[in-house]
Amino acid sequence: MRGLLAATAILLVAASRASAADLSASVDDWRQPRERQIVGELADFVRIPSVAANPEGLAAMAERLRTELTKRGFEARLIGSDTGAPPVVFGSLQTPGARRTVTFYAHYDGQPVVPAEWASAPFAPTMRESGDSGSKVVDWQSAKPPYNPEWRLFGRAASDDKSSIVAFLSAFDALKALDRKPSVNIRIFWEGEEERGSPHLAQILHENAGLLRSDLWLIGDGPVHQSRTRTIYFGARGDVSVDATVYGATRALHSGHYGNWAPNPAALAALLITQLRAPSGAILIPGYSKDVRPLTPAERKAIADLPPIDSALERELGIASPEGGEPLTLSTMRPALNIVALQSGVGARAIPAEATMTIDLRLVPDQKPEGVRHLVERYLQKLGWTVVHSDPDAAVRARSARIVRLDWSSGYPAFRSDMTSAPGRAVIATAAKAAGGRVAVLPMMGGSVPIYLFDEALRIPIVGLPIVNHDNNQHAPNENARLRNLWDGIETYAAILSELDW
Amino acid sequence: MRGLLAATAILLVAASRASAADLSASVDDWRQPRERQIVGELADFVRIPSVAANPEGLAAMAERLRTELTKRGFEARLIGSDTGAPPVVFGSLQTPGARRTVTFYAHYDGQPVVPAEWASAPFAPTMRESGDSGSKVVDWQSAKPPYNPEWRLFGRAASDDKSSIVAFLSAFDALKALDRKPSVNIRIFWEGEEERGSPHLAQILHENAGLLRSDLWLIGDGPVHQSRTRTIYFGARGDVSVDATVYGATRALHSGHYGNWAPNPAALAALLITQLRAPSGAILIPGYSKDVRPLTPAERKAIADLPPIDSALERELGIASPEGGEPLTLSTMRPALNIVALQSGVGARAIPAEATMTIDLRLVPDQKPEGVRHLVERYLQKLGWTVVHSDPDAAVRARSARIVRLDWSSGYPAFRSDMTSAPGRAVIATAAKAAGGRVAVLPMMGGSVPIYLFDEALRIPIVGLPIVNHDNNQHAPNENARLRNLWDGIETYAAILSELDW
Repeated sequence: MRGLLAATAILLVAASRASAADLSASVDDWRQPRERQIVGELADFVRIPSVAANPEGLAAMAERLRTELTKRGFEARLIGSDTGAPPVVFGSLQTPGARRTVTFYAHYDGQPVVPAEWASAPFAPTMRESGDSGSKVVDWQSAKPPYNPEWRLFGRAASDDKSSIVAFLSAFDALKALDRKPSVNIRIFWEGEEERGSPHLAQILHENAGLLRSDLWLIGDGPVHQSRTRTIYFGARGDVSVDATVYGATRALHSGHYGNWAPNPAALAALLITQLRAPSGAILIPGYSKDVRPLTPAERKAIADLPPIDSALERELGIASPEGGEPLTLSTMRPALNIVALQSGVGARAIPAEATMTIDLRLVPDQKPEGVRHLVERYLQKLGWTVVHSDPDAAVRARSARIVRLDWSSGYPAFRSDMTSAPGRAVIATAAKAAGGRVAVLPMMGGSVPIYLFDEALRIPIVGLPIVNHDNNQHAPNENARLRNLWDGIETYAAILSELDW
Repeated sequence: MRGLLAATAILLVAASRASAADLSASVDDWRQPRERQIVGELADFVRIPSVAANPEGLAAMAERLRTELTKRGFEARLIGSDTGAPPVVFGSLQTPGARRTVTFYAHYDGQPVVPAEWASAPFAPTMRESGDSGSKVVDWQSAKPPYNPEWRLFGRAASDDKSSIVAFLSAFDALKALDRKPSVNIRIFWEGEEERGSPHLAQILHENAGLLRSDLWLIGDGPVHQSRTRTIYFGARGDVSVDATVYGATRALHSGHYGNWAPNPAALAALLITQLRAPSGAILIPGYSKDVRPLTPAERKAIADLPPIDSALERELGIASPEGGEPLTLSTMRPALNIVALQSGVGARAIPAEATMTIDLRLVPDQKPEGVRHLVERYLQKLGWTVVHSDPDAAVRARSARIVRLDWSSGYPAFRSDMTSAPGRAVIATAAKAAGGRVAVLPMMGGSVPIYLFDEALRIPIVGLPIVNHDNNQHAPNENARLRNLWDGIETYAAILSELDW
């Protein structure tokens, strides 16, 4: 019996592998003549400036997505906007006979832009020959598909997350064209304030808990592993950020007439930074690691099994050695403290009146934003800083030579789920089969997705299914989406939609 | 004989004091009904955008000044432009019977501007009720003189140095109207590249040494003492600045996906700053003070005799304590190292690719820019920095985790002359008499003027005769000139022009 069962299992895996491989081939055949339309849809999405600074752009993007779902037979509507958030695009499609319900999450908002820093306008989608923002512009609309899969579409949110949304929609269209029925009931949850830290997400999830009931939550956000292997992840670091301002005199002062007398806020900012972190990136705040949950042996093994990428990345990115001296993925399992913006004085040669910085704190389980905030503020106070939360008045200035104003984002904690759950194993197997081989399995992404909120509100298994290239300039100028990743993503989504079961 | 001589001396001083006081009163009487024209001339000058970024503005300003001198009977011409510098306005006027020749130096160029940082456009002169850039705008052209002497004319170079030039011209006009003959032969040397560090000045001085022969060089640059007492100075700190760039990866990287692995250039900048200077402003470079010439007892006494200003300034400027813990004037007798600009990353939440800063080094006798440059570079190399002078290539990046690019200005050394020379004592006495009392005598200004070059090229006594308010936002947005200082300046220049002798 045991022998027979094992043989049957092998046969089943073989059949399923053949079927998934067949499916990928069929999806490819469907896609290749339609690449212009698929890229056209992504370009249309990029053209809609759905960023926090542009509420009209967010509203237009939500409405467009609702329409796309409705067109495809979904029951689709906008929810959550009564909270003050940009609307969540919610969609639902029942599959007769399906046992499981799977929710697909992505966000349609993009990071803020500083257009002057872009090679082409952030909301004017531009195809280039490579990820180099100086590479040749390609007239993809006149080119004959199949396109060179190394081409990249540049534009804000082209990868983060509009590619995931397009991959889902295209996979759905491909299955329909191939007459392949979904294997699960489908729910869609596309939010519009992720890049602001999703301040209204918890409320929306709680208020719509019934609507959102499902057996698995799949997150389309984030890039694939740097090896370009298709990727599954089981968590993400959390995030909280703080804008810090330090003060010199109430006005900029001539660096000759006042140099040695007027406090230099740029130097105070430097002091603050070196008090918070060592050059290795190590966080110098006592007790900062006390809430850090160690990696399990399975998690350590998954990281050790990842394709090697560090040397190639160091060469590509022009760095002699990583900041913390550890391999990339392992280093992102730790809390990080980064200065992502720093500014003091410009133009004239004067001692500036103040210096400002944005400190980005990536959290790991089981750190909480409020705990980190408390630790940072107490530590700075112990070092002699006067911590304030608005600009200091004359009395505060007269009392303290070291004043720091801290303006905290709300932030959210990290999340790392069980890699060995049944749906988790099923997602890994389905994605691996669609890829015709292995996938990279990450216990936790370095970047942040508010997974914690889904877990807290929904208490269902959560798995990450990212598709875009790692070198997409996410959160930076010249964001771009690599076509090969979009095609891979369509294959993966098609397999998940039609083959996933457990 | 001794008694008789002493009595005569007392009588002479009394007579001269009366005469100077009379002169000041006469100059005031001449000025009051003409304040609109005098301010009008300063406003005209401010309207000419004579800054380094605008060579046409510099040329127009030089031509205007040449015309003003010619109108007043000077032999005036533009010299030095064959060196590539903006022209020097040179003027000469002989006084029959005069034994001494005095050269008046000022610069007509202004600091760079970032118009967005100004309350009103930098080249649109705007009168306000006070030095607060938010204070009420005054329609001085319709107002009836005498004006409120606390009014300030806002605009780039309004104080630094166009006020000095207007004070000279008005004083000259006043003496002519009062039929008072100058006591000295007059030379004018108004240069146009001081705010760039006067890179061509040495050459111009050397090439025109014969033309510039005189017995005293009077410098109109710089502000008066913070007590608003009329001021004479005998030197100025030198200056050299360096733009420093430190490097992370070749492109900005997502602070989540790469945080702990990608080197953070903002943190490297902070490290560099804290390696260069202590929070007290103390310079941490070994051997940095070895060329510092100590103050003489006379210089220490002059500083101790200055009107007290520190407590009031600390209150006014909203600082709890001075950076170095010393009184202002004493602290500016030491070398200073200030960060006057610092920038890394803006907009998106990514680990920046680089950080840039401008480090301003104020020098004191007998430091030299090249010596300081050598000390800074050797120190950073010893600390493990790879010092480069252009952007690092892939090979340099692969070798070094700490690369700093340094781009040095040419700079110039400090100068401190003998406060007890005969012409120095004569200038103090004449200015004090015109003021009807005391003047502030500074051994050295904190700010920089290329006095060293005059000394090296001309070998004649050099004395500083500044007139503008200390709180003029020199080298910062919203530069302004206080009318009371302009009026005082006209009195002082009138006394110097008609009474100075030794």
